[in-house]
Amino acid sequence: MLAVMKVSELSTPALVVDVGALEHNLATMSAALPGARLRPHVKAHKCTALARRQREHGHTGFTCATPREVAGMADAGLGDDLLLANEVVDDGRLAMLAALQARVAHVTVAVDSEATIDAAARNGIREVVVDVNVGLPRCGCDPADAGRLAALARSRGLEVRGVMGYEGHVVGVESRASRVEQTEACMALLLKAHADVGGDVVSAGGTGTYDVNTWATEIQAGSYALMDGAYAKLEQQPFRPALSVLATVISVSPGWAVADCGLKALGMDHGDPTITGATVWYCSDEHVTFNVDEGGVPVSVGDRVRVWPAHIDPTVAYHERMHLVDGDDVVDTWEVDLRGW
Amino acid sequence: MLAVMKVSELSTPALVVDVGALEHNLATMSAALPGARLRPHVKAHKCTALARRQREHGHTGFTCATPREVAGMADAGLGDDLLLANEVVDDGRLAMLAALQARVAHVTVAVDSEATIDAAARNGIREVVVDVNVGLPRCGCDPADAGRLAALARSRGLEVRGVMGYEGHVVGVESRASRVEQTEACMALLLKAHADVGGDVVSAGGTGTYDVNTWATEIQAGSYALMDGAYAKLEQQPFRPALSVLATVISVSPGWAVADCGLKALGMDHGDPTITGATVWYCSDEHVTFNVDEGGVPVSVGDRVRVWPAHIDPTVAYHERMHLVDGDDVVDTWEVDLRGW
Repeated sequence: MLAVMKVSELSTPALVVDVGALEHNLATMSAALPGARLRPHVKAHKCTALARRQREHGHTGFTCATPREVAGMADAGLGDDLLLANEVVDDGRLAMLAALQARVAHVTVAVDSEATIDAAARNGIREVVVDVNVGLPRCGCDPADAGRLAALARSRGLEVRGVMGYEGHVVGVESRASRVEQTEACMALLLKAHADVGGDVVSAGGTGTYDVNTWATEIQAGSYALMDGAYAKLEQQPFRPALSVLATVISVSPGWAVADCGLKALGMDHGDPTITGATVWYCSDEHVTFNVDEGGVPVSVGDRVRVWPAHIDPTVAYHERMHLVDGDDVVDTWEVDLRGW
Repeated sequence: MLAVMKVSELSTPALVVDVGALEHNLATMSAALPGARLRPHVKAHKCTALARRQREHGHTGFTCATPREVAGMADAGLGDDLLLANEVVDDGRLAMLAALQARVAHVTVAVDSEATIDAAARNGIREVVVDVNVGLPRCGCDPADAGRLAALARSRGLEVRGVMGYEGHVVGVESRASRVEQTEACMALLLKAHADVGGDVVSAGGTGTYDVNTWATEIQAGSYALMDGAYAKLEQQPFRPALSVLATVISVSPGWAVADCGLKALGMDHGDPTITGATVWYCSDEHVTFNVDEGGVPVSVGDRVRVWPAHIDPTVAYHERMHLVDGDDVVDTWEVDLRGW
């Protein structure tokens, strides 16, 4: 008989993923956006084993945020169509990406300026998309400038596959009606740019707009797989929180308790994590201090608690691995192998 | 001639440490708290190469926050006297720590309860300190209970080296006079517990109280080396900010610019980072959006900016290495080799 590790045997802090919730999320998304309609964003989980599950659900193209994510996906045999949805001007990294083209069908890089086009061209990148600003103050060119940049890219020998434009300022809008309206306005900008740019690709969207953005040819959602607390408040989101940090209670005082999950195990930009049935007081480097809510079961040293991060992506980036759990059993352990840059 | 790498050649985001500021901080602290008066806390930098510099400044004992920090310090030959200033109940990790005792003079673990004493004793740990709560709602026993716990530990065969008690709620008090007064009250509690516990060690303090805590036999300061923004506002702190994240501008729009240093390169619990001469708008996973302040020099794609994290410790924990820089030159690169648990 194969010995199955129990959740209670995991050393902590440990990322744990509820397999039921994960599979529900993957199946729900692939039913809504089958095959190439979804280009899962790997930045949300940084894990090629999880990406492989996404491919098994029919999605063969992936979105990446860093050169190392692209390289790791290629190394894992998941390189059918990799889009680096970010600007890069680092010669060494662009040359590394260009070298991947010998064994990967598509390595496509976002460009939004003459400088990024020049960097891609001089380092041997073959394919680009023009990144268009659709309202989020981040990367992306003026929609009116997209056609000029596409022509410039083509003049440098680059294949321009189309456009991308992330409506990141809309994905968190709570009202679905407002999300639809604002997404349409963003995509009008992107489609206008696309008319000037050409190509097959109109890449956009995220977990918050996956079901309202009907204008893009492909959606770059990533958070849906492990599901982020920040999205849980949105109306009509069918995805279930799948990722928490397992922690051990290491100290109990009359008014509070402390578990071993702190700032170095949690993305903190959205604030403190939550513990069901308890109130979190604060986190320090390796601790979370909390009290059990009135009427709850008191905790003892050695007890395990689930700590729910306020933001998944930067939480995962702190950990070396995630454990897949089904009830009390650890059914698999996956390396978080796409960390770093 | 040895080729010296230039700062401009570093791939980004990259941790960079100003060697002049680091050496100033190390020398200033070792002058104030020479030798065993300081037990540097390695959690602040997670880097054995930096710890070796601290030993070269005369400090042979170190404070750790995780079992892996202890193991890594032992492996690096820096194990003269390692204090794990944290409670652990994980059998596997305690057994690993106990095994270090064959080659390290002192591996001392904090205990604050019957359960933590039992865990230490049953896994073969030899030396403990009693962790005493001196006012911070985190770990540590009631000062009145310290004597009983010490007796219990001795009855289980453990050597009790003394007490520790961290006045973490005082280290950030801005007024020096208030810091002195509150530290004295905390240390009165710790000394009372020490009278009941015995042993040579009274371990306490941090960068914010290193020069006002005259009651502890040793100070556990760590942040002073790289110096945290959170401490910079304290009166009469002689330490200089030594650590920033080097980033590259990857996109410039009419009203803002974007550099490649985001949530996965920054500890965010103290809020957004700062950029000198600019205003940070927000961070996302791999980006910081900012605008250059009025009258400043506009940035272009490819320019480098220094991003100053709001909190050093959880920033360092995201990175694989730190680069020591002297002006435009990279003079050394150190692995951040104490990450994880």
